[in-house]
Amino acid sequence: MPQISNRGQQMPESPIRKLVPFAEKARAQGKTIFQLNIGQPDIATPEVALKAVHNYEPKVIEYSHSAGFESYRRGLAGYYDNISKGISYEDIIITTGGSEALIFGFMSCLNPGDEVIIPEPFYANYNGFSTTAGITVKPIASSIESGFALPPIEEFEKNITSKTKAILICNPGNPTGYLYSKEELEALRDIVKKHDLFLFADEVYREFCYDNNVHHSVLNLEGIEQNVVVVDSVSKRYSMCGVRIGAMISRNKELMATAMKFAQARLSPPSLGQVASEAALKTPQSYFDGVIKEYVHRRDVLVDGLNAIDGVFCPKPGGAFYAVAQLPVEDAGHFCQWMLDSFDYNGETVMMAPASGFYSTPRSGKNEVRLAYVLEIEKLKKAVVCLEKGLEAYKNR
Amino acid sequence: MPQISNRGQQMPESPIRKLVPFAEKARAQGKTIFQLNIGQPDIATPEVALKAVHNYEPKVIEYSHSAGFESYRRGLAGYYDNISKGISYEDIIITTGGSEALIFGFMSCLNPGDEVIIPEPFYANYNGFSTTAGITVKPIASSIESGFALPPIEEFEKNITSKTKAILICNPGNPTGYLYSKEELEALRDIVKKHDLFLFADEVYREFCYDNNVHHSVLNLEGIEQNVVVVDSVSKRYSMCGVRIGAMISRNKELMATAMKFAQARLSPPSLGQVASEAALKTPQSYFDGVIKEYVHRRDVLVDGLNAIDGVFCPKPGGAFYAVAQLPVEDAGHFCQWMLDSFDYNGETVMMAPASGFYSTPRSGKNEVRLAYVLEIEKLKKAVVCLEKGLEAYKNR
Repeated sequence: MPQISNRGQQMPESPIRKLVPFAEKARAQGKTIFQLNIGQPDIATPEVALKAVHNYEPKVIEYSHSAGFESYRRGLAGYYDNISKGISYEDIIITTGGSEALIFGFMSCLNPGDEVIIPEPFYANYNGFSTTAGITVKPIASSIESGFALPPIEEFEKNITSKTKAILICNPGNPTGYLYSKEELEALRDIVKKHDLFLFADEVYREFCYDNNVHHSVLNLEGIEQNVVVVDSVSKRYSMCGVRIGAMISRNKELMATAMKFAQARLSPPSLGQVASEAALKTPQSYFDGVIKEYVHRRDVLVDGLNAIDGVFCPKPGGAFYAVAQLPVEDAGHFCQWMLDSFDYNGETVMMAPASGFYSTPRSGKNEVRLAYVLEIEKLKKAVVCLEKGLEAYKNR
Repeated sequence: MPQISNRGQQMPESPIRKLVPFAEKARAQGKTIFQLNIGQPDIATPEVALKAVHNYEPKVIEYSHSAGFESYRRGLAGYYDNISKGISYEDIIITTGGSEALIFGFMSCLNPGDEVIIPEPFYANYNGFSTTAGITVKPIASSIESGFALPPIEEFEKNITSKTKAILICNPGNPTGYLYSKEELEALRDIVKKHDLFLFADEVYREFCYDNNVHHSVLNLEGIEQNVVVVDSVSKRYSMCGVRIGAMISRNKELMATAMKFAQARLSPPSLGQVASEAALKTPQSYFDGVIKEYVHRRDVLVDGLNAIDGVFCPKPGGAFYAVAQLPVEDAGHFCQWMLDSFDYNGETVMMAPASGFYSTPRSGKNEVRLAYVLEIEKLKKAVVCLEKGLEAYKNR
């Protein structure tokens, strides 16, 4: 039998992968599971997007342009013009989800062996995309005590080597929900400029900012226009993760011409998803107002509920729909598994993602979990009670 | 300004990329262009697929399982059971087009620096996927004189080094349309077994076999069940290139578990495309009968027409919907450009793909073009006349 590759062996598994069989078993036993483990929102996809798909009646479902339908790119450029003046449709490549945008960016900007600095905890799949691209992640720890604020810029400075080609941030953050301030982004701008690095920003949760906090896009950082690459996606914005439509945005023409070669090799992003995404640009503001009100309510129920549990600490996130909480357990991975396998409260239990999968430094985040508040209020309330009972029972087991 | 990566610079461009501005200019001048340069068929997408999309009314367009909807995988396993007894839905990962299937395969089976042997000419994007994966293509020349039959197996043997991990074939072939015989595949089987290599087979044109020729899938090659990886796609089978749904099929469990890690990192293949693809499994045989009759007719009109032109030689392909023709010119790339830029016959001209882009050996295929017979008969007839007039004028220019 031929051997699989080393990189295949090194490819990390999803942080919840180990839990899946336990969840399946729990479900088979009739347990109700409150799934706070993944970012699959229950929010309805905008009517206008689904309707466009239903009204799409081509003779042939053809490839689109490799950079996406020109009409969609022009529409998206209109959306972006409100974020950063002067973004043109030629600064945009439509991709198959935000994932592909980041892979195109890594492939175009970094060589195998090069390094990207990422504040941790970070979205677990950044590890997988780095393995795919053969590059090395240099994590810089942010701390739960400071609510996962940007680590001191000296920490970045210390980690820059001749192989460092880029810094990657997620803003607001998955898994932390942390929203970077203008000052933090300007500090990043300075170091990016000083070392002439690429700055990748995953801004897919841009619309989800709470408590009147404003989102600052890296596209507006002056003096590093040629260094900035934004990763975008419609998955969360319009609650349609399944369409697999994202985008890569940069004012760097040479970079975009390079990324286009990767885009051309895979021919085109999904046409049906683009039809939905282009129509979704017409989603009324009232939709977002309602969604944000709902998420703020959910966040407060979840985070306040968590902090009321003895020994639990969860900083209140300023955006996205995730929170990282510290639990009074030694090994959150074991606890998450135990909750599925050995516990229920009135036939119910909670599924969470062990946070260690969001760190690349070994042994970090061992007593932390990530929770996605993607369920309705009543279910979240029950989940918090269930978690409290679970922690009690776990301690006394 | 930060530098883009070497691999980004090395990433090859599409063979027709240079022609695109000339085509745009020709169109702007009011010329009608017969586009034989890309494999975007004009054949209608099956009704049943479009209808399923129109009837799809979820509240939320969600992620699917990372390997694709289980119902679709089970359906596809049914289709595969007719090709190779015993293929289960667990031997299938649904991918974003055939492109992603090949990338997952390359990533999982080969390390950077490893080699894959491919008979040339081959589908140009294999070069791009190899650059993406950091692997090296070792081309083995097939010749237009033999109709692009499999090169002698000794040629493979000669090119096998300690870095060789795989052989890749496309059957029937893009760009040649060549359909491998059972004997040719068995010769491949023997060498794959002898050196314990992976055998990748791109079989996306499997349904398009003509003149009562039978397609032989590598899935039926005995003794190398653990070595075989099939790349599939619905793009051509159901003429819906835009849905971006493909599949990777292998009986090698370790390989599939590895590929699943890459699949999980990018979350899921497109849901809407899967809805169309699952429904398309119910496409009636009459659809394929009609399509194949049409393609045979087109092939005969095109290939017989080409061979009737002085100095042109085009072997008759046994499958797919491409043909490679040798033209009485020195540089087919220049000729293709000239046809768009400096020629028309009654306001019409022909766009073809210079075949050199389908070779990785420098200077090979310089006087060859690839033609895709994806236009209706009347247009093809006109295209052949137009090409004949063009060759005449080019000679006398």
